[in-house]
Amino acid sequence: MLEELKKEVWETNLSLKRHGLIILTWGNASGIDREKGLMVIKPSGVPYETMQPSDMVVMDLEGKVIEGNLKPSSDAKTHIELYKAFPKIGSIIHTHSTYATCFAQAGMEIPPLGTTHADLFHGPVPITRELSLEEVNEDYEGNTGKVIIERFANLDYLALPGVLAKNHGPFVWGHSPKEALVNALTLEEIAKMAYLTLSLNKNSKPMQQYLLDKHYERKHGPKAYYGQKRR
Amino acid sequence: MLEELKKEVWETNLSLKRHGLIILTWGNASGIDREKGLMVIKPSGVPYETMQPSDMVVMDLEGKVIEGNLKPSSDAKTHIELYKAFPKIGSIIHTHSTYATCFAQAGMEIPPLGTTHADLFHGPVPITRELSLEEVNEDYEGNTGKVIIERFANLDYLALPGVLAKNHGPFVWGHSPKEALVNALTLEEIAKMAYLTLSLNKNSKPMQQYLLDKHYERKHGPKAYYGQKRR
Amino acid sequence: MLEELKKEVWETNLSLKRHGLIILTWGNASGIDREKGLMVIKPSGVPYETMQPSDMVVMDLEGKVIEGNLKPSSDAKTHIELYKAFPKIGSIIHTHSTYATCFAQAGMEIPPLGTTHADLFHGPVPITRELSLEEVNEDYEGNTGKVIIERFANLDYLALPGVLAKNHGPFVWGHSPKEALVNALTLEEIAKMAYLTLSLNKNSKPMQQYLLDKHYERKHGPKAYYGQKRR
Amino acid sequence: MLEELKKEVWETNLSLKRHGLIILTWGNASGIDREKGLMVIKPSGVPYETMQPSDMVVMDLEGKVIEGNLKPSSDAKTHIELYKAFPKIGSIIHTHSTYATCFAQAGMEIPPLGTTHADLFHGPVPITRELSLEEVNEDYEGNTGKVIIERFANLDYLALPGVLAKNHGPFVWGHSPKEALVNALTLEEIAKMAYLTLSLNKNSKPMQQYLLDKHYERKHGPKAYYGQKRR
Repeated sequence: MLEELKKEVWETNLSLKRHGLIILTWGNASGIDREKGLMVIKPSGVPYETMQPSDMVVMDLEGKVIEGNLKPSSDAKTHIELYKAFPKIGSIIHTHSTYATCFAQAGMEIPPLGTTHADLFHGPVPITRELSLEEVNEDYEGNTGKVIIERFANLDYLALPGVLAKNHGPFVWGHSPKEALVNALTLEEIAKMAYLTLSLNKNSKPMQQYLLDKHYERKHGPKAYYGQKRR
Repeated sequence: MLEELKKEVWETNLSLKRHGLIILTWGNASGIDREKGLMVIKPSGVPYETMQPSDMVVMDLEGKVIEGNLKPSSDAKTHIELYKAFPKIGSIIHTHSTYATCFAQAGMEIPPLGTTHADLFHGPVPITRELSLEEVNEDYEGNTGKVIIERFANLDYLALPGVLAKNHGPFVWGHSPKEALVNALTLEEIAKMAYLTLSLNKNSKPMQQYLLDKHYERKHGPKAYYGQKRR
Repeated sequence: MLEELKKEVWETNLSLKRHGLIILTWGNASGIDREKGLMVIKPSGVPYETMQPSDMVVMDLEGKVIEGNLKPSSDAKTHIELYKAFPKIGSIIHTHSTYATCFAQAGMEIPPLGTTHADLFHGPVPITRELSLEEVNEDYEGNTGKVIIERFANLDYLALPGVLAKNHGPFVWGHSPKEALVNALTLEEIAKMAYLTLSLNKNSKPMQQYLLDKHYERKHGPKAYYGQKRR
Repeated sequence: MLEELKKEVWETNLSLKRHGLIILTWGNASGIDREKGLMVIKPSGVPYETMQPSDMVVMDLEGKVIEGNLKPSSDAKTHIELYKAFPKIGSIIHTHSTYATCFAQAGMEIPPLGTTHADLFHGPVPITRELSLEEVNEDYEGNTGKVIIERFANLDYLALPGVLAKNHGPFVWGHSPKEALVNALTLEEIAKMAYLTLSLNKNSKPMQQYLLDKHYERKHGPKAYYGQKRR
């Protein structure tokens, strides 16, 4: 079942490695079929070299494995929480990509320093609070999702399609696996640029709000005019 | 029409990606036929993998599309302003290359710290002022060109073949697409070297003016003796 | 003799170069057959391009060459000391990988700043003390092993499968050459992330102990649930 | 004439590019036939993609072109000065490799921070003084060689096979083109490691002198025991 989505999710996982966002078996991508209410996710700890589309695991949003012979990614419960809270997203990617993880480790959100950032994120890339001892021990992966959702209480998850899990790494999302992949690549690059900019001049200030708005709206929303056809 | 120039511009766009100056669909290169007064530029947001020479868009200097089925790069108006103000250039490249963009975001010009810099830029790489709210909202791309031109009021655009658009990224130019490509690669490398040098020793001083002159003149101008034949 | 192990050790040495942990002929990997009490190690200073499995050198734990026409790695005595002191390891890798070496040169252990670290190291990556003049002159390579062992007097070498030799570089180990390779790659990546995190925010604090425990135990030990089957 | 040496010099120039020490046409390698007193050097500004062994230029130590249709590297006079002053070297390489150039631009020698450094350089990598206005204008390239020689007045050029030309970049040498290439690669890597180490901990101290001696002598000189056979 869901053969097409399995293939997309599998390809996205391989692309993450090919683009250098993942080394070894770190990270995972998933996609969801909203009509069926089923998620397709990478299996846990399987080498990318031999992984096949048929190795992808199908789960429902209660966390039950519906199809697949392998154990799902250990982060599956985080994905499920996000799919339940963010109804318009179709795919989630988690990586330990180097520069985004470095902001997560430093406990800093990524400030919008230039138009590269503004072309995707309509504001700083947010960071979650720390989990408490109880949250880690009771349901670590589920609660990782919940602190992300808590962080977005007053934020638009479509205008800010990613977050840094504190001391952990980035989660990004999009309407489709393809879009989530673009967002994961973009987040890593803006994290790298922000790192370099702040290293060069630690007093660097965020860009003007009106330039941030302009660039974001040039690519997204009703007045967008970048690219050929809008989704 | 302009099939030869289309091919050159197309190849230059692909080279930018191959050399790592561009990821995804960020950045754009153009060329101009000065006799006909027509510009050839990359289409907006088209994947590099499938882009063909015939996808390049031909425009006049009023911004009208003369030939092509696709929308031109959203930065086309910036290119047009520069071609009108800098009559001796034949090609323009805009990228978000990592280190040059980091200086643009930090709001710093790139100081001439060594001979690698002096071999191309006869002085610091300039940076533009910020655009005002009105400039952004009325004609963002056109005004991006205008603040570049304003910055060059007392500068020689042939001796300084590039600029940093504040909070945005570099624009470089040259007599031909091939030369503009060399200049884009060189700018990124000197930005990287300047970043590292200033990180290592924040009191690093610009090189002596006479060494800057020597290296620049060794490669450019009437007394040049680098390379085999001068243009 | 030990043809299978020779091939594994040879492949691991080549993999180190392919993954960029080693340039030129720097670094070395070894494996041990615990039943026979024999170690297989890379020869000294041989180009990786032409090295064959049959070039691997077999030694006993007194440091005597049992088989092989080439001189063993000049670090062979360090490997031997570690195999004698750490009875459960089956393979050792020494590299000059860039970021791990930079911590060794700076005289700093690598603090556990995030879950990438915690997935492999259950605490900071330790660093040895300096060798004394006598230790260097009498038996440099043997004493390099001995200061590592000294550093682990109160540490669990399986929960901390690597160390920084001060002013030198990392030694890592594992149950098999394959596992040691994964550990070498992981150490370099967490060193890079720690470098970037501390550069971004020099007051970055280690992650909470309970999150460190959680991630380490998710992958290792009796309650592990990451991956498909546990070793 | 000198076909064998031309091929070696040509291969070395290509290797510099393949290893990332050179971009575009920056940098040059040469070799010398001591019996004939003739130097073979890369031509100036020729693309590496099409360069052939027969394009190499043969010069005598007065700077006269003996064979070849192309202009020699603009740095040829620097090479000649070094060959005249350092009679035991057989090859010279000049690059603008990123990290070594960054030390040259920062006006800092590279301190010996670890064994990677000590395996090649028996002390800090020296840096030249600035050239005066007269030295630049009268004979820039010749005087670049002369300030290097001046810097080595009390140094052993075989135990320190490279130097940083201030505000310019590294020159390295060796008995053969192959050795000079290894030295150029090693210098860039130790420059990178020193940059990272000093960024991480600006109070990092040079390694102990006796460890520096040990590592240098393990690879070089009468008591060397690294590798298979000594030169």
